[in-house]
This record gives sequence, C-alpha cells and structure tokens, in this order.
Amino acid sequence: MGYKIAVVGATGNVGREMLSILAERAFPADEVVALASRRSQGTEVSYGDKTLKTKALDTYDFSDVDLCLMSAGGEVSKEWSPQIAAQGAVVIDNSSAWRYDPEVPLVVPEVNAEALRDIKKGIVANPNCSTAQLVVALKPLHDRATIKRVVVATYQSVSGAGKDGMDELDRQTKALYSLQDVQEKKFPKRIAFNLIPHIDVFMEDGYTKEEWKMTAETKKILDPKIKLTATCVRVPVFISHSEAVNVEFEQPITADEAREILRAAPGIMVVDKREPGGYITPHEAAGEDATYISRIREDITVENGLAFWCVSDNLRKGAALNAVQIAEAMANRGLLKAKKQAA
Amino acid sequence: MGYKIAVVGATGNVGREMLSILAERAFPADEVVALASRRSQGTEVSYGDKTLKTKALDTYDFSDVDLCLMSAGGEVSKEWSPQIAAQGAVVIDNSSAWRYDPEVPLVVPEVNAEALRDIKKGIVANPNCSTAQLVVALKPLHDRATIKRVVVATYQSVSGAGKDGMDELDRQTKALYSLQDVQEKKFPKRIAFNLIPHIDVFMEDGYTKEEWKMTAETKKILDPKIKLTATCVRVPVFISHSEAVNVEFEQPITADEAREILRAAPGIMVVDKREPGGYITPHEAAGEDATYISRIREDITVENGLAFWCVSDNLRKGAALNAVQIAEAMANRGLLKAKKQAA
Repeated sequence: MGYKIAVVGATGNVGREMLSILAERAFPADEVVALASRRSQGTEVSYGDKTLKTKALDTYDFSDVDLCLMSAGGEVSKEWSPQIAAQGAVVIDNSSAWRYDPEVPLVVPEVNAEALRDIKKGIVANPNCSTAQLVVALKPLHDRATIKRVVVATYQSVSGAGKDGMDELDRQTKALYSLQDVQEKKFPKRIAFNLIPHIDVFMEDGYTKEEWKMTAETKKILDPKIKLTATCVRVPVFISHSEAVNVEFEQPITADEAREILRAAPGIMVVDKREPGGYITPHEAAGEDATYISRIREDITVENGLAFWCVSDNLRKGAALNAVQIAEAMANRGLLKAKKQAA
Repeated sequence: MGYKIAVVGATGNVGREMLSILAERAFPADEVVALASRRSQGTEVSYGDKTLKTKALDTYDFSDVDLCLMSAGGEVSKEWSPQIAAQGAVVIDNSSAWRYDPEVPLVVPEVNAEALRDIKKGIVANPNCSTAQLVVALKPLHDRATIKRVVVATYQSVSGAGKDGMDELDRQTKALYSLQDVQEKKFPKRIAFNLIPHIDVFMEDGYTKEEWKMTAETKKILDPKIKLTATCVRVPVFISHSEAVNVEFEQPITADEAREILRAAPGIMVVDKREPGGYITPHEAAGEDATYISRIREDITVENGLAFWCVSDNLRKGAALNAVQIAEAMANRGLLKAKKQAA
C-alpha cells in the first residue's frame, strides 16, 4: 500500500530531482503524477525507469491525492497550496511563500522533525537551499555548545536560480570561447568567470532577501536566539552551494570535538584532512545526499570560536531531498494518511 | 633625470604588469631592464610601446641599478634580494620571503607609507594580494571607529596562482566543452566550474598559509591589535579577488558614515546602489587600479558591526600597482636615489 503523490513544477530543476529522489528512495507510492503549467503540459519527465507525461495543474483534480510536493515558485504556491490542502493532501512546498507563516512548520528533518506534529494549514515549508545545509551542520554543534552568532559567506551555484541560471552560465561560457557577445538575461551581470554578490531582491537595510532568509529561517528551524549575518554570492558553478562559516558559541568547543560531533550527526559527512585535496569541493558534492563539512578549525579571534567549510547539492538537500525526507518523516510518524487505505 | 630600474620575474603575470604600470604611470626611468631565469632569457616583454628582451638574472650586473622590482617567488628573492640591495638598489619584493622580517617594512602606500623611512636591509615587502585590497578598505574605517575583529571570506581568482593558474582554468573549461579528460596540474582539484577552499600550504592549526598571511600582514601593516580570521577560497574567475568582510568596531559607525568615509579615502571607489547591478563584480574590476567597495551595510548581530564586499584586480593593487606605488612614495619622499645623479 502506498500514497498518491503529485509533484507540481515537475519540469523544473527541483521538480525533476523530486521525482528522481522519490524513485531512488523507493518512497511508497501507488501513483505519481507530474504537474506543471499549461505551457509545459505534455513534457515528459522521468520517475525512476518510468516516463510520466506532465499534466496541467489548473485542471487537475486533487481529491484523491495524499501528498503534494510543490516546486513551482511563490506565486503559484500562494494560490494553489491552500486549495490542494483543503482537499486533504499534505503539501510540502519548496517556495518561500509559507516559510514565515507561524502556522506552517519549516522543517529540516535532521533538525526539527518534531515540528511536523502541528500542521494547522496542511502545508509544510521546505527551507531555502543555503539554509538547509547550514542548519544540518549547526544543529549538533548547537546541542553541544550553544551557538550565539554565525557569520556566513556563501558561494551559491547557478542551479539555485533554476534551469535558466544553468543555461545562462553555459551559454555565456560558450560565447566567451567563440568570441560572441555575452548576453545577460537571467542574472543582472555576467556570471561566466565572474561572481555576483546579489541573490533575490534588495531590502531596506541593504541586505538581500536571500541573506535575510538565511537569518529568519535559521531562527525558525533551529533557535530564535541565534544571531546570523550572511553575504550571499552567486558563483560560476553549476551545482552545489558552498559556505564559509564562522560560529561563536556560549561554551568552549575544540575543533577535534566538533569533528567528532559532526561525524556522528545525521546527514553529515566530514572530509577534513588538512592536506591538499583533503576537503570537499562543490563539483564533488553534486548528486550526493550528504552535507559535507571540511576545514574545521578553531577561530581564536573570538571566545569559543570555530570556522568550517560546508558544501551540499542545492537541488537535493537544499530542495528535493529535504522535501522527500519531510514526507518520509511524516509517513514514519503516522502523520501522512493514504486516502484509499483510510477509506 | 630618472632611475635605472630592473624588473625581476619579468615574464610572469605580475612582472609583465609591473612593466606595463611603470610605463602607464610614467615612472621616471632612464633605463628599464627585464630579468628572469635563464629558461626565459630572450623572451620579449612590453614596456609601454617598447619591447624589451629578457636577460638572465644570474649574470646581470646590478651595480648601477637604483630600483629593483622583484616578482620571482620566495626562493629567488631570499637568494637575490640581499645581494641586489648590497649593491645599493632598493628592492621592492612581491614574494612572502621578507614580509614578516621586523627589519623589512611591509607597505601599502595608502595605509603606512611612513614605514618606508626605515629600510634597514634595502628591501621593502609588497603584501599578499588579498591583504593589500583589504587594508586599503579597512584603514579609513579603523581611523574612524577602531577595528576590533574582522571575519573575511575570500573569492580569489586563478591569476593569483600565476600564469599556470589561468592556463589551467582555461584548459579545463575547454576540455569540459569538448568532452575531453579534465586534468589537474596546478590546482589539487578541478577549478573549472568549481571552488577550492585551499590556497598555499596547510598549517598546524588547520588554517592555510594564505589565511595566516592575511592575519599577520593586516596586523603588521595596519594595527597589531586587530584580530582577523579568514577563509581563503579559489574561484573560477581569471582576474580580481573579491572578499566578503564583516568588521566589529570599538566605536559606533553607521553604514552611511562608512560609505562617506570610504568615498573620501585614497585608492577606493564606492559602488553601492542597493539595486540589481549596483555593485562591482571581479570581471569589472580587472584592469582597474581602485579597490571597489559595495554592499556596505550594518551588521546588527554584533555591537558596532559593518559588512561589505571588496573587489580589486589582484595583479594590480594586489601586486604590481602596489609595488610601483611604493616606488613612487619613496621617490616623492626623497628616499629613492638615482646613482648617476648622485655621482
């Protein structure tokens, strides 16, 4: 017995990854449907070794859907998630539309799976990609030594901006090598062989929304007392986000202790040899599930300070994998009901 | 009347840039000679609209050289700088060989030109590329509000690793687009569409030498009381280093005040519009002299905190330009004598 699952936004980077991860992890499904806008209707997408034909979201009948994985952007989610939830499906949404709603849990299963017990609106929010991997790394350290403040600089891949972002890096790189004009469409400046210190919109205080999200989401998922300041930068890498992280703790913690704690923590792989190549790069983390931690060292410029390097596949732990893990955590806790079984 | 100038390491990235900047800024020269290893003997390099044939360092007679700009690596500098200085030339060295010697001033003219008055060994050290642009930015802020601690994450271009670094990014990118094997020679992991969180050798405490240099050099150039912690990362960008910087001050300072102070400071261009494109990217800073500051904002996670983004051409301000500026500062202060004039 399994669930009827709808994946909305099935033709995007994250939607395709959701389908692939559902199959890979053998999530119990009686039926999986791929949904997208009318524009993408008919597009074929893979679910394991099956091929699904994408159907139109706006004419689909959700009445016997148990679980809906949404990755269709904030506007679509604001309109559709409540309607789908009203028909009795649990919606796990990858956009930022519901993340800051106090009645919607924002969940990274390794960190706060218990928040899934209270889903008033039938919607669970998936965090921002940069936040997901960071809180996986911070949680076990916070449990041990209580985090006061985090300073993070990100190195975010173009796939975080969707398929268009990947296409733009590819197109611009080719143009540079064929002496053609480099055109900027998706990003405000050239991204090929360049960096853009700006992701999402600018806010009043000079921070970008992406930077604000990392602060707000870390507080909601992990602990509202944690102070976090971020600089978010787009880099010419296709997949995986990387982060240079400095943490100040209440209690003392050595680099060796942190390494042991992180090694034992769920979802984490420590690769930290202090020699050339003894660390993880984003290219190596692409396609992997783990959050990789390298370069763990004491930061003696502050009391109880640590620094580390954190890399994870932004389409997987940062999006699709985390959404499927939320569904698994709900199923395991008996919080996800199959309508057919119930009937 | 001008000086006789020798540029050692004239065929490298920085050596070529030194020659080009000497010409560009019309540094008073009666004669400029290009020197390099025997291997590069005969290689032609440009000095303004002239072409110089590179001569061998080890057979060159320095007796009437007034000024020697060295960019030939630490080992060559350790051997040759004292010999050249003993013949009465001022040596401005771009390697790390002399930077931490208490008898050798380490100078960024905008910050500590007064240190040039005391050159016991006849050698002046040019700082590490990442440090030079950072102290240009920190100096005016330190004068105003006294810096306590700096957290910096770098995004360093491959040209910082020399011509071989640029060739490797180029070669690997082409290989990826022509479905050939990607080979790693210069860097320990692939750099094309990837990041490497490791520059220079690893040290006992888990920091890299590049990270240690930023701390040690900022203390020596600006103020030994400043605490600085760095994460240095190589990025697939050809020219210009970028830095995400968080600073904690003794006294309060607002983002607006910082912007005004930086606008008025020497060597700095502020580009900070808080809108898409309203900041500088490394590609735009390449070939420019300024240290560019963008994304200036208050960091409310700490008392008197500021964050900003700092970009500069690592071959110019980070190396060749700073060396020529040191020579200019010495000439202007009467600290650089022309032997012919003196005779």
